[in-house]
Amino acid sequence: MTVMLSKPYLIFVGEETNPVYAKTGAGLVQWDRENCVGQLRLTEDAVDLGVPECSVEEALKQGAKTLVLGIAVVGGRIPTAMMSVIEDALSRGLDVASGMHDRLGDMPAVRDLAQRSGAKLIDVRVPPADIPIARGVKRGGKRLLTVGTDCALGKKYTALALAAAMRDRGMDATFRATGQTGILIAGSGIPIDAVVSDFVAGAAETLSPDAPEHHWDIVEGQGGIVHPAYAAVSMGLLMGTQPDAFVVCTDATRSHIVGWPDFPVPSIQRVIDITISLGQTVNPDIRCVGISANTSGLPADQRATYRQKLSDDYGLPCVDPLDGGVEALVDFIAGEFPHEA
Amino acid sequence: MTVMLSKPYLIFVGEETNPVYAKTGAGLVQWDRENCVGQLRLTEDAVDLGVPECSVEEALKQGAKTLVLGIAVVGGRIPTAMMSVIEDALSRGLDVASGMHDRLGDMPAVRDLAQRSGAKLIDVRVPPADIPIARGVKRGGKRLLTVGTDCALGKKYTALALAAAMRDRGMDATFRATGQTGILIAGSGIPIDAVVSDFVAGAAETLSPDAPEHHWDIVEGQGGIVHPAYAAVSMGLLMGTQPDAFVVCTDATRSHIVGWPDFPVPSIQRVIDITISLGQTVNPDIRCVGISANTSGLPADQRATYRQKLSDDYGLPCVDPLDGGVEALVDFIAGEFPHEA
Repeated sequence: MTVMLSKPYLIFVGEETNPVYAKTGAGLVQWDRENCVGQLRLTEDAVDLGVPECSVEEALKQGAKTLVLGIAVVGGRIPTAMMSVIEDALSRGLDVASGMHDRLGDMPAVRDLAQRSGAKLIDVRVPPADIPIARGVKRGGKRLLTVGTDCALGKKYTALALAAAMRDRGMDATFRATGQTGILIAGSGIPIDAVVSDFVAGAAETLSPDAPEHHWDIVEGQGGIVHPAYAAVSMGLLMGTQPDAFVVCTDATRSHIVGWPDFPVPSIQRVIDITISLGQTVNPDIRCVGISANTSGLPADQRATYRQKLSDDYGLPCVDPLDGGVEALVDFIAGEFPHEA
Repeated sequence: MTVMLSKPYLIFVGEETNPVYAKTGAGLVQWDRENCVGQLRLTEDAVDLGVPECSVEEALKQGAKTLVLGIAVVGGRIPTAMMSVIEDALSRGLDVASGMHDRLGDMPAVRDLAQRSGAKLIDVRVPPADIPIARGVKRGGKRLLTVGTDCALGKKYTALALAAAMRDRGMDATFRATGQTGILIAGSGIPIDAVVSDFVAGAAETLSPDAPEHHWDIVEGQGGIVHPAYAAVSMGLLMGTQPDAFVVCTDATRSHIVGWPDFPVPSIQRVIDITISLGQTVNPDIRCVGISANTSGLPADQRATYRQKLSDDYGLPCVDPLDGGVEALVDFIAGEFPHEA
């Protein structure tokens, strides 16, 4: 009932020369280096992810299971130059995974090759077909959701960094992916914003199933709980996740919702209050355990001061995963949940 | 960008003998009698909707544009006995509309007939393909949304009754349908719970477009804003509708969410508070203008007392559309919005 990928990966960079568009591949290397056998580049000036060059044949010898398209381009079209490698991989039985808008499953030639070799096509933007309606039943284990004052300000990054830091601390934590890049990194997940609205909460339940008492699911948030367009996604995710804890992600220099210039970014307090009020429906013990602030827009010497001020104002740890890490969050969680740390 | 039907209708009852399953047809007659040329029944003991018996041929002579399947059955399968009339209607150029789970558009023979005659197949559970992302921009005209403490307790009925009563009072009011039965009655609408979550708010914007200053859209609510499974639908509807006013629908004798026995029905006050808090994001002037209570579960002599108590407690009119009508709501709205009445 979730999108599933097989690791290890061969990362396909193609001809992409712009690091911004190769962020997916870079994310795979950053968060799951040990499951990346190498990169396949079509030209010498393509982005170098810092892992060994590797052909489809070599990758197969090293046990690679999936060729992952490691780029995301405007418009979401798979570049024509990449098709012959995709077809070669499929004909040799290597799965191919893509987060592009263009669906591999919609290409008859590609589908035929996959069918013949038994390789799988994984379009990570396409939700599984068998998502149930949410039941609302309490599940074992603990769940943390990253929520946000807006989109695109660090909810995925915070969840990945937090899950990794908790594991480093010896805690049992799993990152749960709700968007295409996160799904490629995790190797599984559900693209929650593509799920029909009646089933969003059910998708979130499926994503963070019953687990042992000390286990933590760290769920990647989406949208924003008072976002003019995407609040429905955030609401379903909140109801289905039944979080015990949440972290509010924000951006130090953003004043208005990106793409909705008439809407100021809500205050952190408003996001905390609404998330607790709504979340108590499914988990009476829901609480905010910290703030993750993207401070990259501030001068380097003002970032720590800004975080300290937020921390003092809210009585919560405030971190920037890219500037100082998330250890303070892990400390706070360990203190709040002494039996699950 | 909405599902559209052409009126007048011929209502197809088929062989259905249970009035519960012929509620769709009964609703069409109740709310839009003048656009129903008649009913087509296959057996004498089928439910009689109280309109003239009419064949496809006679209906066409009287100007009928659409054959509407006036039944809803468990499982959502279109009974085989109905297929020959459906095919006859299509071959003569009559559109066919269905709210069943079985899709007309998925039946090759049916699709062929429609293609040849130019008749349209309208599956009212299937959302249009071109729904945009919500923009959040303020539109002209006024909007009222019926919200609820749970599903299936009168949100559609209240909206229909209110729109009709406002028109009787000389106000310019349009019922806006968000579910299959409502769409068949209104002749247009969007099945909001079938819309992908990213687009729910956009669907609600499309459904209640820019309008003249004195116009009221009376939008049929869905789900419940703190419903464990369907809150996402309600949230998107609230954000996209940007309601100026809302009515809380409740059931006098319901203690728990139907189908979710672990969840008590939220208090009316909680629904009001959350709806105002979230709704202020898109409309700072949002206000509750009344309560619509389904009191059919109470003894007849206790209903008025129950409503009076709620009215006193909340300082708002409390009506039961099926027991006394909605005039008190219209009075209150006219008082609250003196320039739009």
